[in-house]
Amino acid sequence: MTRADLTPARLPRGFADRGADELAATREMAEAIRRTYELWGFEGIETPFFEYTDALGKFLPDQDRPNAGVFSLKDDDEQWLSLRYDLTAPLARHVAENFQRLAKPYRSYRFGPVFRNEKPGPGRFRQFLQFDADIVGAGSVSADAEMCMMMADTLEAVGVKRGDYVIKVNNRKILDGVMEAIGLGGDDNAGRRLTVLRAIDKLDRLGPEGVRALLGAGRKDDSGDFTKGAGLDDEASSRVLSILRAKAESNLHTARKLFEEFASTEAGQEGARELSAIATLVEQAGYDGRVVIDPSVVRGLEYYTGPVYEAELTFTVSDEKGQPIQFGSVGGGGRYDGLVGRFMAENTPATGFSIGVSRLLAALRALQGPEAPRPLGPVVVLVLDRDQIGRSMAQAATLRAAGISAEVYLGASGMKAQMKYADRRKSPCVVIQGSDERDKSEVTLKDLIAGSAAAAAITDRAEWTESRPAQVTVAEERLVEQVRAILSRHE
Amino acid sequence: MTRADLTPARLPRGFADRGADELAATREMAEAIRRTYELWGFEGIETPFFEYTDALGKFLPDQDRPNAGVFSLKDDDEQWLSLRYDLTAPLARHVAENFQRLAKPYRSYRFGPVFRNEKPGPGRFRQFLQFDADIVGAGSVSADAEMCMMMADTLEAVGVKRGDYVIKVNNRKILDGVMEAIGLGGDDNAGRRLTVLRAIDKLDRLGPEGVRALLGAGRKDDSGDFTKGAGLDDEASSRVLSILRAKAESNLHTARKLFEEFASTEAGQEGARELSAIATLVEQAGYDGRVVIDPSVVRGLEYYTGPVYEAELTFTVSDEKGQPIQFGSVGGGGRYDGLVGRFMAENTPATGFSIGVSRLLAALRALQGPEAPRPLGPVVVLVLDRDQIGRSMAQAATLRAAGISAEVYLGASGMKAQMKYADRRKSPCVVIQGSDERDKSEVTLKDLIAGSAAAAAITDRAEWTESRPAQVTVAEERLVEQVRAILSRHE
Repeated sequence: MTRADLTPARLPRGFADRGADELAATREMAEAIRRTYELWGFEGIETPFFEYTDALGKFLPDQDRPNAGVFSLKDDDEQWLSLRYDLTAPLARHVAENFQRLAKPYRSYRFGPVFRNEKPGPGRFRQFLQFDADIVGAGSVSADAEMCMMMADTLEAVGVKRGDYVIKVNNRKILDGVMEAIGLGGDDNAGRRLTVLRAIDKLDRLGPEGVRALLGAGRKDDSGDFTKGAGLDDEASSRVLSILRAKAESNLHTARKLFEEFASTEAGQEGARELSAIATLVEQAGYDGRVVIDPSVVRGLEYYTGPVYEAELTFTVSDEKGQPIQFGSVGGGGRYDGLVGRFMAENTPATGFSIGVSRLLAALRALQGPEAPRPLGPVVVLVLDRDQIGRSMAQAATLRAAGISAEVYLGASGMKAQMKYADRRKSPCVVIQGSDERDKSEVTLKDLIAGSAAAAAITDRAEWTESRPAQVTVAEERLVEQVRAILSRHE
Repeated sequence: MTRADLTPARLPRGFADRGADELAATREMAEAIRRTYELWGFEGIETPFFEYTDALGKFLPDQDRPNAGVFSLKDDDEQWLSLRYDLTAPLARHVAENFQRLAKPYRSYRFGPVFRNEKPGPGRFRQFLQFDADIVGAGSVSADAEMCMMMADTLEAVGVKRGDYVIKVNNRKILDGVMEAIGLGGDDNAGRRLTVLRAIDKLDRLGPEGVRALLGAGRKDDSGDFTKGAGLDDEASSRVLSILRAKAESNLHTARKLFEEFASTEAGQEGARELSAIATLVEQAGYDGRVVIDPSVVRGLEYYTGPVYEAELTFTVSDEKGQPIQFGSVGGGGRYDGLVGRFMAENTPATGFSIGVSRLLAALRALQGPEAPRPLGPVVVLVLDRDQIGRSMAQAATLRAAGISAEVYLGASGMKAQMKYADRRKSPCVVIQGSDERDKSEVTLKDLIAGSAAAAAITDRAEWTESRPAQVTVAEERLVEQVRAILSRHE
């Protein structure tokens, strides 16, 4: 093949390869999350990557552009298929399709990649991991309270310390009540309500004045781009913004304040009463201070119908430039009583949340810093005579039989390149057997970690060699024993 | 929403939902495979689900229909993207893109779903799991021998007994030599060579006469459909078929026989010599009888350039109708020295295999039978007074803190429905606290497994109740202790 024929080797835009360290960290985190969910009585379910496009509905923030936001294609039979953009819409389909068979309330968890057909950017991928948990068939806010508490348990299980996170909870019904009161009720105003939701959702980023602009005529950002607002007048905007300031010193105080200020509508009353019930349950279970009523949480999706909640990391880490950054939200969810109802006439309440695994992982790595210990690689059995490779293979097999990760060097290079290879593989030691050693049924083991430490600190080399030999020759039958001794020094 | 507005809840054709038991079994199998690969010094890598279509190449058996076989769609920038159909083509792209950075020989494993845009059928899915391992940058057949031995280790690690499987190995070069000898060499004959490959690959299903028909003019199957053959004359067909009969009583004998019969071409000589080297290494490492040279293995993909190997289960199980069935191949692979070379001018030998995880899982489940133990569900804390649910939640939290999976019943139904729910969740026991018990700070535990056993065997009920009480009331502080006692009876 000539160079001109070569296909370019490149990743598609917005997608990434993941290496061994990241995979191991992801697996460990996913296991911790799974164990937590299972402790709470949730069971696994996996839906396929594709759904019929109509089953996914139009719940993405980018819904204004039809068919944008999701990856879609036409099947042989002319039906449209889409890759899942979250793990909630497929659950709703699954529950409706298997309704009779499922024991309800149905507690399930789902883990895996989801896909967004959006403009990629730095750190903004079109494929990322979510780990969801949902309860379908429980209409009481006890279920929402449980979800908030489980979210707290989950963060602690993956290594976030108590005090380094907060689960914020609010209730859409309070906002619904206000919307109704300012004349934004009814189906006709769905679009404007969504604009209000999105505006509030940007509080952290834009501050109250930014939100006020987006509630009113609109807002021009630093680049000069103008975003059209919801068109509320000053009084209506103030009414909406007053919700955001209703947070008080304790959950029960916040709930009471909300009730006092927003009980003029039935929705507002109900919302405040539900939050009060959640506050009581959270207090009884000892999650006070970890689960906090915060009226500024709304979540950007329109399908929520009651309590909404968000997991936020509160610690600050330094980015590559040494600037302090806050990670903010690593997951959230809420009650979506209407979502399963798209498929079936039966009333099916549901509540659940999603953890952004890739995001949470990035946060924890930033917290732990680059010093996180890297796991050791395999023992490398060097090959000095290629026609004796069978004996090297037998040595590797002996190590593996003892549970020690080991490999034979399979390349065509010489001793020096083999040592370099072992180094790059983070190998704790290499096994060497030249013809002399073979004749005497011996092997030489070189401790690469002690060896590089010794090379770095050669001030008192004699003493070092004496106390922690980087190289040792032993009888072949003592191979496992000797490798174990080296491993125990470094693990 | 009226019934007419409802969206149908249905899975796309050829896709399936997977329940908790299957997920747990898959996870366990994947872990066993991963541990084995890591013992052999392989490290994980994950590529995204999408690749540029041109990077995937045209290596699917359905390549005759352009763009068929894979799920493809056009990106915003008019470039074609495809979902990966295997885990080999993306590896080739990854290696070429990161060539300088990787320590070679590069041993990697990859696990995850792949997608085939094919006609779905019973048990034939368009999304399924593969677990691959490959060595890139090792040209010697020692690497192929290692792959065969690791495949054997992998099958044993997931629970296939020695004797219940065989790793068959062959070398494409022998067939290449025969093709050359019968005038099928050169680029012009690539299509006919592929037809020959596919014909031989059907030996198990069609027998030698079926293969002979496909090597010649063609074959009409039972339904009357005619498949065009490779158009070989009788003598050429016999020459090809003679390879399939070259298997002898031992690996070294087979290799010798192949050398004697097919050494007339350089390719044939080299192929036999390589198999002989593999036979020697396999024997030295004690894998004789598990790794077997079998000249009938060719693999259906055209990109293989040397040794090819296949993992076959040899045990027989009964299908639902009581008919004995053999599972056959659960994975395979081979040497593909040209695949990375599509992307870069450097010569990059590679060898590797893929395990069909879904298929292997199905085989093991059929072998173990339906009696495979189902894991116990969570302890269910019943809710007798809904305004006391906070206390129920605290009980569940106490159990979870002790590492016991537990949940509070969150539905709106009464006692009887709650018991039924616990039963359906495979709960080992329920926690009950009525007002009497609450006043006395007691809880009642009902052992659901002993309870149903007792109900089934009431011949000596008094004695049963005496020895293994299905229901017990204890002080609330003894909750964990008592639940542990029940769990220990059933785990």
